Amino acid sequence: MKILWINPIGTDLFDAPIGEFIGKAKAPETEIDVVSLRRGPMHLEYHYYEALVLADTLHEVRRAEVEGYDAAVIGCFYDPGLMEARETTDRLVVTAPAESAMHIATTLGYTFSVIVGRKKWIPKMHENVVKYGFSTRLASFKSVELGVYDFQRDKQETARRLRQAAKEAVEVDRAEVIVLGCTIEFGFYRELQRELGVPVIDAVIAPLKYAEFLVELRDRFGWSHSKVYGYQSPPPDEIRAWRLAEQYGVQRLWE
Amino acid sequence: MKILWINPIGTDLFDAPIGEFIGKAKAPETEIDVVSLRRGPMHLEYHYYEALVLADTLHEVRRAEVEGYDAAVIGCFYDPGLMEARETTDRLVVTAPAESAMHIATTLGYTFSVIVGRKKWIPKMHENVVKYGFSTRLASFKSVELGVYDFQRDKQETARRLRQAAKEAVEVDRAEVIVLGCTIEFGFYRELQRELGVPVIDAVIAPLKYAEFLVELRDRFGWSHSKVYGYQSPPPDEIRAWRLAEQYGVQRLWE
Amino acid sequence: MKILWINPIGTDLFDAPIGEFIGKAKAPETEIDVVSLRRGPMHLEYHYYEALVLADTLHEVRRAEVEGYDAAVIGCFYDPGLMEARETTDRLVVTAPAESAMHIATTLGYTFSVIVGRKKWIPKMHENVVKYGFSTRLASFKSVELGVYDFQRDKQETARRLRQAAKEAVEVDRAEVIVLGCTIEFGFYRELQRELGVPVIDAVIAPLKYAEFLVELRDRFGWSHSKVYGYQSPPPDEIRAWRLAEQYGVQRLWE
Amino acid sequence: MKILWINPIGTDLFDAPIGEFIGKAKAPETEIDVVSLRRGPMHLEYHYYEALVLADTLHEVRRAEVEGYDAAVIGCFYDPGLMEARETTDRLVVTAPAESAMHIATTLGYTFSVIVGRKKWIPKMHENVVKYGFSTRLASFKSVELGVYDFQRDKQETARRLRQAAKEAVEVDRAEVIVLGCTIEFGFYRELQRELGVPVIDAVIAPLKYAEFLVELRDRFGWSHSKVYGYQSPPPDEIRAWRLAEQYGVQRLWE
Amino acid sequence: MKILWINPIGTDLFDAPIGEFIGKAKAPETEIDVVSLRRGPMHLEYHYYEALVLADTLHEVRRAEVEGYDAAVIGCFYDPGLMEARETTDRLVVTAPAESAMHIATTLGYTFSVIVGRKKWIPKMHENVVKYGFSTRLASFKSVELGVYDFQRDKQETARRLRQAAKEAVEVDRAEVIVLGCTIEFGFYRELQRELGVPVIDAVIAPLKYAEFLVELRDRFGWSHSKVYGYQSPPPDEIRAWRLAEQYGVQRLWE
Amino acid sequence: MKILWINPIGTDLFDAPIGEFIGKAKAPETEIDVVSLRRGPMHLEYHYYEALVLADTLHEVRRAEVEGYDAAVIGCFYDPGLMEARETTDRLVVTAPAESAMHIATTLGYTFSVIVGRKKWIPKMHENVVKYGFSTRLASFKSVELGVYDFQRDKQETARRLRQAAKEAVEVDRAEVIVLGCTIEFGFYRELQRELGVPVIDAVIAPLKYAEFLVELRDRFGWSHSKVYGYQSPPPDEIRAWRLAEQYGVQRLWE
Repeated sequence: MKILWINPIGTDLFDAPIGEFIGKAKAPETEIDVVSLRRGPMHLEYHYYEALVLADTLHEVRRAEVEGYDAAVIGCFYDPGLMEARETTDRLVVTAPAESAMHIATTLGYTFSVIVGRKKWIPKMHENVVKYGFSTRLASFKSVELGVYDFQRDKQETARRLRQAAKEAVEVDRAEVIVLGCTIEFGFYRELQRELGVPVIDAVIAPLKYAEFLVELRDRFGWSHSKVYGYQSPPPDEIRAWRLAEQYGVQRLWE
Repeated sequence: MKILWINPIGTDLFDAPIGEFIGKAKAPETEIDVVSLRRGPMHLEYHYYEALVLADTLHEVRRAEVEGYDAAVIGCFYDPGLMEARETTDRLVVTAPAESAMHIATTLGYTFSVIVGRKKWIPKMHENVVKYGFSTRLASFKSVELGVYDFQRDKQETARRLRQAAKEAVEVDRAEVIVLGCTIEFGFYRELQRELGVPVIDAVIAPLKYAEFLVELRDRFGWSHSKVYGYQSPPPDEIRAWRLAEQYGVQRLWE
Repeated sequence: MKILWINPIGTDLFDAPIGEFIGKAKAPETEIDVVSLRRGPMHLEYHYYEALVLADTLHEVRRAEVEGYDAAVIGCFYDPGLMEARETTDRLVVTAPAESAMHIATTLGYTFSVIVGRKKWIPKMHENVVKYGFSTRLASFKSVELGVYDFQRDKQETARRLRQAAKEAVEVDRAEVIVLGCTIEFGFYRELQRELGVPVIDAVIAPLKYAEFLVELRDRFGWSHSKVYGYQSPPPDEIRAWRLAEQYGVQRLWE
Repeated sequence: MKILWINPIGTDLFDAPIGEFIGKAKAPETEIDVVSLRRGPMHLEYHYYEALVLADTLHEVRRAEVEGYDAAVIGCFYDPGLMEARETTDRLVVTAPAESAMHIATTLGYTFSVIVGRKKWIPKMHENVVKYGFSTRLASFKSVELGVYDFQRDKQETARRLRQAAKEAVEVDRAEVIVLGCTIEFGFYRELQRELGVPVIDAVIAPLKYAEFLVELRDRFGWSHSKVYGYQSPPPDEIRAWRLAEQYGVQRLWE
Repeated sequence: MKILWINPIGTDLFDAPIGEFIGKAKAPETEIDVVSLRRGPMHLEYHYYEALVLADTLHEVRRAEVEGYDAAVIGCFYDPGLMEARETTDRLVVTAPAESAMHIATTLGYTFSVIVGRKKWIPKMHENVVKYGFSTRLASFKSVELGVYDFQRDKQETARRLRQAAKEAVEVDRAEVIVLGCTIEFGFYRELQRELGVPVIDAVIAPLKYAEFLVELRDRFGWSHSKVYGYQSPPPDEIRAWRLAEQYGVQRLWE
Repeated sequence: MKILWINPIGTDLFDAPIGEFIGKAKAPETEIDVVSLRRGPMHLEYHYYEALVLADTLHEVRRAEVEGYDAAVIGCFYDPGLMEARETTDRLVVTAPAESAMHIATTLGYTFSVIVGRKKWIPKMHENVVKYGFSTRLASFKSVELGVYDFQRDKQETARRLRQAAKEAVEVDRAEVIVLGCTIEFGFYRELQRELGVPVIDAVIAPLKYAEFLVELRDRFGWSHSKVYGYQSPPPDEIRAWRLAEQYGVQRLWE
C-alpha cells in the first residue's frame, strides 16, 4: 500500500520529522511518501492560507491517484479540501486529521475535547464538528495559545500547556477523550495519555491509520467514496476542453 | 458606493447579462463593476472547480478592498470563499448568494425550499444550510436537472421546470418562500412569484442588496465583520515575508 | 419611505430620545414617526406586560399599513407580535430587534452573545434564538442585572457593566459579535465596540435599518413576507362579520 | 379540585358540548367550569385572533387563581398564552392542549403525527414542537383541510378525513401515536384509535387530565411551576402603580 | 389501582424505606407492592450491573402484567429497560424516573439541571436527555460525588452537597427546575425546594405519580403505549416455541 | 490478532455461514472464533429478546477479554450491549454493526440510508443514529418487510427487495451510501453495489474490519476506549463481594 502524506504548506520543514514519526506508525507493508507544496505559506492558521494551497493540494491528491497511490492524507486539522478531494478522485482514498480523529474519538468515549493552538482556529473547526455530526459529543475546545511553529520549539512548555488544557477538559468539561487539534502537535499524545489516563488522539497518526483502514475496505469490499451526488467527479472531457491543466500549470492529471 | 461583482469563473460570458440585470436592481448611487476571472472553469458545478478559482476569487476580493470598493459579491450559490474573504479583508463587505438569500427567505416566511439545477449540488448546499443555521426552516431541496448553461438557453423550458419544482415545494413540502439556488437562474424570479404567489428569491439580487445593506451598516454604525477569532486577518508582514504575492502571481494586494 | 416605530408600552417617555436617536440612523429619505401606546405598562420585562400590549401593538401595525406606511418596527427585544404582525398585514414590512440583530450578527461573525438586563429575560429570548435558527451560533447570554429604566439613568454605570459583560463574552465565551438585548440599551454600542474591537449591534438601529432594507426588497423585487401558510391573513370579511373592530375599540383598520 | 376550562374565543357555542365532553373525562372529585370570553373572534385559526384574545385569556387565568381554582386550561391547540399564564400566576396550574398532548404522545410511542385542520396552522405548531423539545419525535403534520367549524358539522366526513390522514401518518410516516391538533376535533379519538390500533390523543382530554395530574403534584409535593427566571411574576405593586387593571378594564385581579 | 415498584437490584434493603416513602405519596386508592430482585448487584451505578438485572427486571414487569397490576415502575434513574418493558407488555403502564421527571420538569420551567451522584453516570443520562428530546432544555448536570449508598448514610452531608450543587445550577447555570438524578436521593426534595425556591423533582415520586396518571389515561381513554413499530410485542407463540421461559427460569409469563 | 464474533442468539445456525463469510473478509493474520449463546431466542427482532441475551453477551465479551482475545464483535445491528461491553472490559476492543457501519458510511458519502427488515426495527435504530451523531446525515430508513430468517431463504427475492429499496433510497431520498441494517443481510452487498453504483455497507464486514482497525490503534498507540466516566469499569472487588459470578452462573470472569 502506497500512501502520500501531503503537508499542504510551502515548506518541507516538517516533511522529515513527520515522515519519521509516520514511519513508526504505519503498517509494515505501507510505503509512505511525504511531500509538501512547491509554493505556499509556511502554516495554515489563516483561512486565506488554506485557500492559497487548496488547488495545489488537490492536484497533489489527484497526482497521487494518477501515479497509483492508494491513499492521500491532507495533513492539516482544518481538513482543507477533503470533500473536494473525494470529488476529484475515483479510487484514491483521501483522509484528513479532524474527520478521522473525531470518528475514532467518538468510538472511544462519549465525549471529547479538542486542544487547539489558538482561539482563532475554533470557529472553522467547530463548523467541522457540526458538519461531521459530532456536536452533541463535543465537550469543549481548549486553546493553549501557541502557534504552529511554537509547538515543537519548546517542547516542555508545549507539553505543560497541553497537559493543563487537557486536564481541565477532562475534569471540568468531562471530556472522555482528548483530540490534539493540529498536526504539528504530533508526538505529544503518548506522554499526555499516560499522565491523563484517557486516550489522546494524535492528529498525524489518526488520518494515516484511517487511510490504511479505508484502503483495505476499498480493495477487498469495493467500499470507496460514493460517486453520486456530493462526490460526483467533474467530467475529464470538460476539464480538457477548458484546458484547465494548462491554465493552472498542472500536467498529466486529466489525460 | 462601489461594489465589485465577481463571477468566479474563467469566462466573461455572463458578465454583460448579469451586469445588465444587476444594473436594474442596484441602488441609484451604487456603481457596480462585474468581473470574471482571467482563468478557470466555465461553471462551478463541481467542487474541484470551486477549489481552482478560490485563490483567484479571494485575490479579486482583496483587490476590491485595496482599490477602495465598498463591497464584493462572490457570484455563486455555493458561496465559495465567503468566510475566507471576510478573514482576508478589513473593511470590505463581502456577500454571497446562499447566505443572503437564506437570511431574507427566513425573514419572509417560516420555511423555504431551494430549487437547484442538479442533485449533485445538494450535499454541499445542505452543509451551508446547516452552517448558516437554517435547517429547521428548510422545507426541501428540489432539483430541475438542468446544468448552469441550460438555464438561459431554453428559457421557456427552464421556467416550466422551475415552476413545477417550486409548485411542488409550496404545495407538498409546504415551503412559504422559494430560493433559486443558482445565480444563473437569474431573472426567472419575477414571473415565478407572480404565478406562485409566494416570494421567489433571486440569487443575484439577494447578495447585491445585502451588500448595499451591509455597507450602510458599516459606514454609519461601524458594524463590519468581526476581526476576532474566525475572521482574524493573516498578518501582512507574514504574507510579505513569505513572498506569497510573488508565489501566486498577485500584485499590490498586501503592501 | 415612511416607517412607524412603535414603542409598545404605555408611556411616551422614550419616544423623543428614541426618535432623536433613530433620526441620526435612518436613511435621508426615510420619514419616521415614533409612537407609543395610549395605555399599557411602562416596560415589557414581564410576559404579562407583553400580552397586554399585543393587540394594541398589532393595531398600530395594522394602522401603519392602512395609513400607507412602508414599514413598522416593534421596538422591544422580545419581538412581541412580530409573527402575528406579518400575518395581519399584506404589504407592510414589519421588523423587530432580536430577529434583525441576530441576522446581522451571524453575518458579521460565527458566534454572538446577547447582553440582557436581567436573567429573567433569557428563557424567552433563548426561545427566539432557537426559533430564528441561531442556536449553534449563540456563544452566551450575559446579564448585567439592570432593569429597563436603569439603563439610561446612570449611563456610566451601565456602560461599565455592559463593557464587563461583553468583555467576558468575547474573551471567555469566544463571542465574535455582541448584541445588546434591549432597545433601551440604545446608544451604548458605539463606545463599546470601540473599546472591545468587535461589532456591537444596537437593538434600535438594527430593526430600523432592516426595515429600510426589506422595504426596498419589497418595492423593487416584490419580496414581501409570504402570505401562504404561516402568515396567511385572516379574512377581512370574517373580521367585519364578527365586529372585531367594535369589540376591541379600533377603527378603520379592516374596511 | 376546581378547574377552569377557558375557550379563548368570543362565543359560548362550544362551552356546552365541551363541558359535556369534559364532564365524562374528568376525575369524579373535579369540578369544572367552562367559560369563553365576553368578546373576541369565533375561532383562533389566525394568529391575529390569538393576539386579540391573549390579554382576556390571561385575565381569565388570573381570575381563576384569585377565585381559588386549582387549575386553568387554555383550550386551543396553539397553546396561546401558556407561558405567559405561568408567569402571571403563583399557585395555579395552567395547561394547554399541545404541550400536554405531546408529553403524553412521546411517552406512549417513539414518534407521533399531528392531524391539523389547515396547512396554515402548521408553522406555528411546528414552532411549538421545537420549543417543547419533540422535533426528533415528530413523524409528520397532516392536514385534513377543514376549518374549526367544519369538524363537528359533518361528523362522518370529518371522521373519514381524520382516518385517512392518520392512516397515512401511521403507514407512510411511521407515526406510532396520533395527536388531534385542534380542540374542536374533540370526540373523534375513540373510534379512530379503535380503527387504527394506535393511541389517538384528544386535544381536550389531554390538557384536562394533565391539569389534574399537575394539581396533585403541586398540592402534595409542592411542585409548581418555577418562579425564577422565565416564569418570575410581575410585581403586583408595579401593576397597581401603573393602574393596569383600570386601563384594561379588569377588576380584582391584582389586589 | 395496583402498582408494582421494582427496585431493580439484588437487595431488599431499600424496599422498606422506599415503600414507606411511596406510601405517603401514592393516591389513596393505589396499592403498592415494592419488590426487588432475587439476585443481582446492590446498586446500578455501572452499566454492567444494569445489564445483569435487565432480564429479571423485565420479567418482574411482565409478571406485573400477568398478575393484573396496572402499572410497574422501574426504580432507577438510568431508566433501565423502560422501552423494552413497553414492548413486552400489552396493557401494563410502565414508567421510570428520568423520563417522568424530565416531562414534569420541562412543564414546570424552561430549563432544568440534574444532580447526580457521580460524573460516571452523566454520559448515559445525557443520552437519555437527548433521546427524550430535552437537550435544549437541559441547563446542566451537576455531580455531588456520592455513591448510591452514601446518600442516606450521612443525610446532613448529602443535603449540604445537594444544596450547593443545586444552588450553583440555579444561579450559575440558570436552571429553573432541579431534578434529583437518583432514586436513592429520595426524600431530600422537600427541604431543598424550600431553601432554593424552585421545584425539586424527587426521582421516586415522579415515576409513581406518572404511573398513576398514565393508568387513568389508559383505563378511561384507551391511551396505552402504542403497539405498532417500536413497542410491537414479540409473538407469544415464538416465545413458547423457543422455550424461552424454561431457558431463563421464568414461569407463567407467556402462557 | 484474535477476534471473537458473537452471534448474540441462542442458536448456532448462523455460526458456520457467518464464520465462512467472515473468513473471507478478515485480515490474513486475524483468527476468528464465531460463537453463539447457549440459550436464548433465535433472533433479536424484539427488544425483549435483546434484553434476554444482554447479560450472556456481556459475559461472552468479558470472557473474550479474560481469554486474551483482542476484540469482540457483537453481531446484531441494534448494537446490543455495545456501551456496556466497553464499560465491562479494560483492553478488549468491542465493536458492533450499526456504529461501525455508520462511521464508514458517513466517511464515504454525505448521506446514507439504512435498509432494514421490518418497520418495527426503525425506532430503536433511529435512536442509535441520533446517539452516534449522524441524524443530519441520515437520508432515510427503508424497510423490505422481511424477517431475519427470510433474508437467506429466498435469496433472489431478498436481493430484489433490497435492490428496490436501495434504489429508491438513492434516487428519491438522495442517499449516497447504503447500509444494510441487519447482519443476516450479509453477502448481498457486493452485487447490490455493483448494480447501484454506490457503496453498500455489509453489517458483518463493517464491525469486523472496524475491530481490526481499533485493535491496531490500541496496540500501537494505546488508543483504547476511555475508562473515565461513561466506560469506567465496575470494581472487581465489588463484583466478587456481591458474588455476582455465582448468581449469574458465570465463571472465571472476575478473578
